[in-house]
This record gives sequence, C-alpha cells and structure tokens, in this order.
Amino acid sequence: MRRSVFFISDRTGITSEMLGHSLLSQFEDVEFHRMTMPFVDSVEKADQVALEIRKHAVIDGCRPIVFSTICNPELRARIHVADAQIIDFLEMFIGPLEDELGVKSSHTVGKTHSITNYDEYKNRIDAVNFAINHDDGLLPRDLAEADLILVGVSRCGKTPTCLYMALQFGLKAANYPLTPDDFGNHTLPKLLLPYRSKLFGLTIDPERLAQIRAERKPDSKYCSLESCQFEVAESEALLRHVGVPYLNTTRMSIEELATTIMHRAGLSRRTY
Amino acid sequence: MRRSVFFISDRTGITSEMLGHSLLSQFEDVEFHRMTMPFVDSVEKADQVALEIRKHAVIDGCRPIVFSTICNPELRARIHVADAQIIDFLEMFIGPLEDELGVKSSHTVGKTHSITNYDEYKNRIDAVNFAINHDDGLLPRDLAEADLILVGVSRCGKTPTCLYMALQFGLKAANYPLTPDDFGNHTLPKLLLPYRSKLFGLTIDPERLAQIRAERKPDSKYCSLESCQFEVAESEALLRHVGVPYLNTTRMSIEELATTIMHRAGLSRRTY
Repeated sequence: MRRSVFFISDRTGITSEMLGHSLLSQFEDVEFHRMTMPFVDSVEKADQVALEIRKHAVIDGCRPIVFSTICNPELRARIHVADAQIIDFLEMFIGPLEDELGVKSSHTVGKTHSITNYDEYKNRIDAVNFAINHDDGLLPRDLAEADLILVGVSRCGKTPTCLYMALQFGLKAANYPLTPDDFGNHTLPKLLLPYRSKLFGLTIDPERLAQIRAERKPDSKYCSLESCQFEVAESEALLRHVGVPYLNTTRMSIEELATTIMHRAGLSRRTY
Repeated sequence: MRRSVFFISDRTGITSEMLGHSLLSQFEDVEFHRMTMPFVDSVEKADQVALEIRKHAVIDGCRPIVFSTICNPELRARIHVADAQIIDFLEMFIGPLEDELGVKSSHTVGKTHSITNYDEYKNRIDAVNFAINHDDGLLPRDLAEADLILVGVSRCGKTPTCLYMALQFGLKAANYPLTPDDFGNHTLPKLLLPYRSKLFGLTIDPERLAQIRAERKPDSKYCSLESCQFEVAESEALLRHVGVPYLNTTRMSIEELATTIMHRAGLSRRTY
C-alpha cells in the first residue's frame, strides 16, 4: 500500500521534511510518496494544499499523512479541513513551552532558516569560503584560523565533510591529502606540524576507495586495488604513529562523520 | 533569565537540534544556553546526561528544556528521571503514526542521517563533486548533466547556494559568474545558450555587494560601489531581457534561497 505524505510549511519546508523523514524512517515496510509544499503563506495556497491532500486521499484510497510547521492558526485551520493524519509540530509543542517559559510565543512565520543574526550568518558564509579555499591542500596560508584540518588519502571523504561542517555548523574546516610522498618517514607533512592539535584523520576500506577512484580515473594506477591498499595501510600507520585520531568513512554518512568528529574533537557548532 | 536547553539523541543530534531550534525561535526574549549531546546510546551515557540536566537545573534555578529523539525506551526512562521539560518527538508522534499506518515502528536507533540507501548517498556525493567542479564557471564540459545553473555577478551567493543544494538535496547545481565582459550586447554568454531552461539568476543589493567584496579585496575597483552598482544593474537588465528568473539574495538565508529556487524551478530533492 502506498501512502501519500505531505510536508507543509509557511517557509522553506526544511524543518517539516526533517521531522517527517525522521519519523517515517521508523516504518521501513511502508512505501511513502513524499511531496513538499513550501511557502504556504496565504489562504489561497492553504486551500490549494487542502485540495491536493483530498485528491491524494482519493487516489490512494486512504488518508494522507501531513507534517506541518505552519504558524498562522487561520491557515492551519484551512488545511485541517482535509481528512488526513496531521502531525502539527507547533500546535503540539508551543503550548507546553509557553507554559514552561511563562511567556507567549511570537507566533511569527517560521524563522528557523531565515537570517536572524547577520554576524552568525556571515560566519557561515566565511566558513564555506574557507572550506573551498583550503580544499585538497590548497593555499594553506591561514591554516591557523582553521577549527579543524582533516587529513587522509585522496577520495576518502574529506571535502564533503568539510563543506558540511561549514554550511551546517559554521566551522572552518580545511583538508589536506596524504599522498605517497608523505609515507615512509613516519612523520606528518611539514606544513601540518604547527597544527597538530587541529588534525583529524579519515580512512576508508581499500575496496570502496578503489571503486570510487575508478569512477574518476578508470584503469589507472591511482584506482588499482593495490595502490589503494598501500595508501590506506600507510596513512593509517602514519596517523597511529603520530597519534592523530581517525575514523573510517566507509559506512558513515556525511552527517555522522561531521557530528562524530565534532564530538570527539570537542567542537561546537557556531551557527543554528 | 537564562534557560538551559539540551538537544539529546542516540545518533547525530541533528534532528533534535533542528526541531528544538525551530520551536525556540518562537521565543525571542528568552536567553537560551544550548547544549547538544549526541550518541547517547548506553545506560551510562543516559545517566550522565540526566546528571548534567540536574546540574544545570541547580545552576539556573529552573528546569532545563530537553529536546530528545532517543528511540530506546530504557534510555529514555533514565533521562526522564531528571526534572525537566522534556519534549520527546518520537514518544509524541510514533504512537499516532503506528495507529494510522496499522504497523509497528521498528524502534531502531535514529536512522535519519545514516546511509540507508547507497545509491541515494552516492548521488549526493556526486552532486557535491559536481558543484565543486562547476564552481565559478569552471570546467563546464558536462553542463548538460546539471539540474540547474546559477548565474549572477561575482560574490552574490552562487557558490554556497550550489553547495547547499548538492549536500542537502542531491541536486547538481553549477554556477557561472556574469562579468563586465558579458554586459552590453544583451545576450547570454555563448556557453550558456544551450542550457537556457536550466538557468536561474541571483542578484544582490550593490551596497551589500561592495561590503562583501571589500572584505576580499579592499580598496579595489572590484569592490567600489560604482562597479557594484554597474554590474548589478547590467546583470539584472540582462536577465530581464533574456527572460531568466532571478532572486535578490541580500536578505535571504542559504536555505531560503535554495528552497525558493527549487520551488520556482520545479525541482525536487533527490535525497533525504
């Protein structure tokens, strides 16, 4: 059986989607048909959404599930006329929070993902630029500014992890590739020595690495299993030898990598 | 009055933080002291969290607020012994969803941000690589693969928006800078002509642009208000002339830009 699922919001829809996705991931055997309806900020749009919900109820032969983060009670009421299982996040929790805090909520349109603090926002953009300007060992002049420097062999997952930390947490993360030139003398590349405390290593299973590299440069020495095994073994030995902590990225998502590294390195997010 | 807030999770803490942040943003006048405790996956860690909560209750002289996405009922119970306003997302919504769907949830540890589908995950990494390889007009060989091409003057916000769309939605977004060479003849750069339907423009207030550019290259012609006014006026005139839709980024967050563009361009996310 297929269930239609709506993520509805008066702004971006990101919170609504994340809440819904997090709950739906607990139901593995149901096939969900997901639709996001952001920027529902007028009576006309709310009525349009209610109509869509009713349409899908008829098509599926059962009530759709609706995740909503709409603030305006009038718009909310227009959507609630549709027969659906409505999971209304603000309606459920704002009341108890108002009671606990002893103040009324501002009931303003979703501000979760708007610019509420310009300095914080600028930090975040600066962090993204920092990640791009310090990707793959590039231009490492102001490495002293880095919150973190990821090291590991080429294609082990450094770049997406750095970008994620910059975009989501406002952290300045540089990355530096370990190449065969760096192996053998059991010491870190000279450039990294002053920043030892900022280093965190990434490693990966050689088989997966070979597969990823083959997509980039098929039939190369770079992607041969032999090279990958050698580079991974040497980089892990080096990181162990110099006492830099490391994580295996093979079965971890970018979110898991980023949060695990932050947790272990004692870093906190700079932006919400 | 200061309130301590805890975001607790058995995995990354990202869902707990986002949902909590979204609720707290409705209370502008309260000062919150936010702490994230990810990877709470054992009785020992749960007891440690409960202890921290109690400590902060004493320090603040009032109950902390706790946002939790912990699945395991035993761990949940260990945390619930602390006197706090506990907002437990799964506890609140899983029951109604089980009733509606007529199946039991898997009650497994948070999988929202783990790799559940390797193909989907690979798409996402490919999209990040695509964004980096097609940043700032770089290497535009396989532009045909792009879901979207952002155009606009240098420093108007193209790069962070492309990276966000890649990381969060798995979309392949390229970007191409409009420079003074592109103005005057009222036609798009030749390279972009075959991809007209994929184009979306970004613009920005000249004053803000001058400020951003001044941080990068102070006292340059590049950052002069005059140049910025000229480039912005010309790029907007060009986009209007050729009928490419555009957004002003000045007061929009990356999330708002990304979701607004997707909404207007009729694009859906490729990954959750």
